[in-house]
Amino acid sequence: MTDSPLVRPAPVSGFPEWLPEVRMIEQKWLDVIRSGFEKYGFCSIETPSVEPLSVLTAKGETSNEVYALRRLQEDADDSSDSRIGLHFDLTVPFARYTAQHFNELVFPFKRYQIQRVWRGERAQEGRFREFTQCDIDVINVDHIPLYFDAELPRIMHEIMTGLGLPTWTININNRKVLQGFYEGLGIGDPLAVIRAVDKLDKIGPEGVGKILSEGLGISAQEIDSCLALARLRGTDAAIIDEIKGLGVKSELLTEGLDELAYVLDSLGNLPPGSVVADLSIARGLDYYTGTVYEGKFVDWPNYGSICSGGRYENLTGSFIRRSLPGVGMSIGLTRIFAKLLAEGLLEAGPKSPSDVLVVIPRDERWKDAEATAAALRQRGMNVELYHQADKVTKQLRYASRKGIPFVWFPPFEEGKEHEVKNLASGEQTTADPATWLPTAG
Amino acid sequence: MTDSPLVRPAPVSGFPEWLPEVRMIEQKWLDVIRSGFEKYGFCSIETPSVEPLSVLTAKGETSNEVYALRRLQEDADDSSDSRIGLHFDLTVPFARYTAQHFNELVFPFKRYQIQRVWRGERAQEGRFREFTQCDIDVINVDHIPLYFDAELPRIMHEIMTGLGLPTWTININNRKVLQGFYEGLGIGDPLAVIRAVDKLDKIGPEGVGKILSEGLGISAQEIDSCLALARLRGTDAAIIDEIKGLGVKSELLTEGLDELAYVLDSLGNLPPGSVVADLSIARGLDYYTGTVYEGKFVDWPNYGSICSGGRYENLTGSFIRRSLPGVGMSIGLTRIFAKLLAEGLLEAGPKSPSDVLVVIPRDERWKDAEATAAALRQRGMNVELYHQADKVTKQLRYASRKGIPFVWFPPFEEGKEHEVKNLASGEQTTADPATWLPTAG
Repeated sequence: MTDSPLVRPAPVSGFPEWLPEVRMIEQKWLDVIRSGFEKYGFCSIETPSVEPLSVLTAKGETSNEVYALRRLQEDADDSSDSRIGLHFDLTVPFARYTAQHFNELVFPFKRYQIQRVWRGERAQEGRFREFTQCDIDVINVDHIPLYFDAELPRIMHEIMTGLGLPTWTININNRKVLQGFYEGLGIGDPLAVIRAVDKLDKIGPEGVGKILSEGLGISAQEIDSCLALARLRGTDAAIIDEIKGLGVKSELLTEGLDELAYVLDSLGNLPPGSVVADLSIARGLDYYTGTVYEGKFVDWPNYGSICSGGRYENLTGSFIRRSLPGVGMSIGLTRIFAKLLAEGLLEAGPKSPSDVLVVIPRDERWKDAEATAAALRQRGMNVELYHQADKVTKQLRYASRKGIPFVWFPPFEEGKEHEVKNLASGEQTTADPATWLPTAG
Repeated sequence: MTDSPLVRPAPVSGFPEWLPEVRMIEQKWLDVIRSGFEKYGFCSIETPSVEPLSVLTAKGETSNEVYALRRLQEDADDSSDSRIGLHFDLTVPFARYTAQHFNELVFPFKRYQIQRVWRGERAQEGRFREFTQCDIDVINVDHIPLYFDAELPRIMHEIMTGLGLPTWTININNRKVLQGFYEGLGIGDPLAVIRAVDKLDKIGPEGVGKILSEGLGISAQEIDSCLALARLRGTDAAIIDEIKGLGVKSELLTEGLDELAYVLDSLGNLPPGSVVADLSIARGLDYYTGTVYEGKFVDWPNYGSICSGGRYENLTGSFIRRSLPGVGMSIGLTRIFAKLLAEGLLEAGPKSPSDVLVVIPRDERWKDAEATAAALRQRGMNVELYHQADKVTKQLRYASRKGIPFVWFPPFEEGKEHEVKNLASGEQTTADPATWLPTAG
């Protein structure tokens, strides 16, 4: 043991980590998400954790969240390190990747990407400085079929069902409907209205009305129309009629309504309430141009978005002069996981992935115990061999504390039978390592 | 399209990324490694990518490799960010994790950890600034059974076999043998000799001899003995006799030889050559105290270690005043993967995880094609629905370019039969979505 002063092993605020039994559940979640994406033919990519700062700040708006890297040694000989930073989302790296490897990809390019991202923001509930995002995007040259606007929320719906999340809704809207509606009203800067309506959640209709009137000089009657639109909700074609019933007309509005109707129709066979058209959803980001998504927990409406995205016309515009429209969605894995954990809604797993602990009855039987463990592993089970001959009660307690469901007893003497104990039921029976199968505890 | 200047989407030196067809193989590797670890009951943990700089530099020796983080905005309000850095290995975070969660872990604690690590060093062959390490360690209170010294290389052997790597050897030694031998020779600073012998690979016996003689004042006869020991290789108990034959004696040497004999004996049923006692292996790091491992490709002896580790007495000494000895090994996934890729020894996978592409014969058959895809997915297959009605040749070409092995043709008219084409064999047959199974192409 050292006598030098101890360094306190403390967590760093905003950088979560889990105990093994919680990590076990997170891994299951990651498996469900990955297989949900692959089920629809999305391929995996990963990008480096860093990008050049020029790439990260190409859009100019998020530079305050970026963690830049610097070598700890100040006399570092390579100044290039001072120009890289950790990615703050997976969209920018995906755009850069697509542009960089354009000639080697097959389009439509359907990729998923499950990685950590970093944001240097103040840590608070639902906000982390390091967290895992799970993104899917389809991107294509010049044109992206509307089909994908419906496929993506369907995939997310299947995954969230597979995860057994508490009731959620994927709210859907279409930026063309909003923009076309505001244009139809004769408003000159529809994007400014979208940005204002996007704040509805936080500042309410009065706050939005104030921005529209005082900031943008929009008339009271037009504001009423904008807020009437934002109040509409629906799950089928009826919502389209309600929007039309507001009496506003424009070419873009018609186009948006057709798209929205297509998406609602395509998703019509999902359980009621899982996808809802919500005309107040705007998504702040300016690059969305059509369908937008915002998933929320029904019971925690203020917790923020758990699964969001939308359609964009030109994600890679900062990198290459090609038109590459796409549609994408993202699940905030850490945000969802941490919330359920905090609410006590996640049942921790066992502390070990083992199906079986093989007991070492006494030193002379070591080789036999080892051969038994090997035979069970060969048949696909996860098997831990206890690490020394010891009292059986001690070995049983170890299995029990680690949540290993079965304890195997190789014969105490040559020629006797093997036995296996189910720790949940307490039942102990003779068993043959060549044929025995674990049953649900 | 934007008219603003383009940002060149360039790779950052030392930060590798792969195309989807290569990533597909990397994912398979990760699955093999994870399941190899879990097969022996190791649980997964992940730690944050960052640690406080006080934790990262607790040992004081690697500070020049650490990437520290800083918020890009200089007026960042939270100065704590300036005291964190990216981890440069998984050992330090594991030690901190074990100390921090000491009361919540069950010992012996067997964990694996597969994560990216970062080192701000000059990029060169086999050296990356960001790479994935796969670590297993067993750590216990006060005493760690010798059993694990043999279990760990067995697990690594099984995994490297599962990955189909080109011939490798896991070289094994025991620091007690080295230290006990030097002590038996009467050398006052055996650790200094170990550090010198560790350079044998790079500077040869003459270079090592020079350090021992000029730097440490060791006599020519003792140097001969040290170098004679370092020349010994063997795969079974015979090597123990050869070492004893050098005529040196000490208590520590005897203890080390017993341990080495146990490990060699336990691994005696592995294929010849996969584990070799190599008395020149020292592992530079001072914290190793017993068995040490160093895996190498036989055909690329200078490529560096692909899988290494050892036994340590007190990993967490910087954090808590408990004795927590352990034994650990690490596979350098990125280092191995990148090497095989560069040597042309990795066969790329398909560009898509899909088993089947379902064709949309014409717009009117869309719903039927969608139902077919859903039925196949329900039965566990990865199925992509083509995104629009189009010429069949175009849809076939898409499947072929993405490496999707089967193309499914829903009936062109209601009531006709489904057909499926195997793109590898060209064979096309009728098929029922409720019963058909893909066969190896």
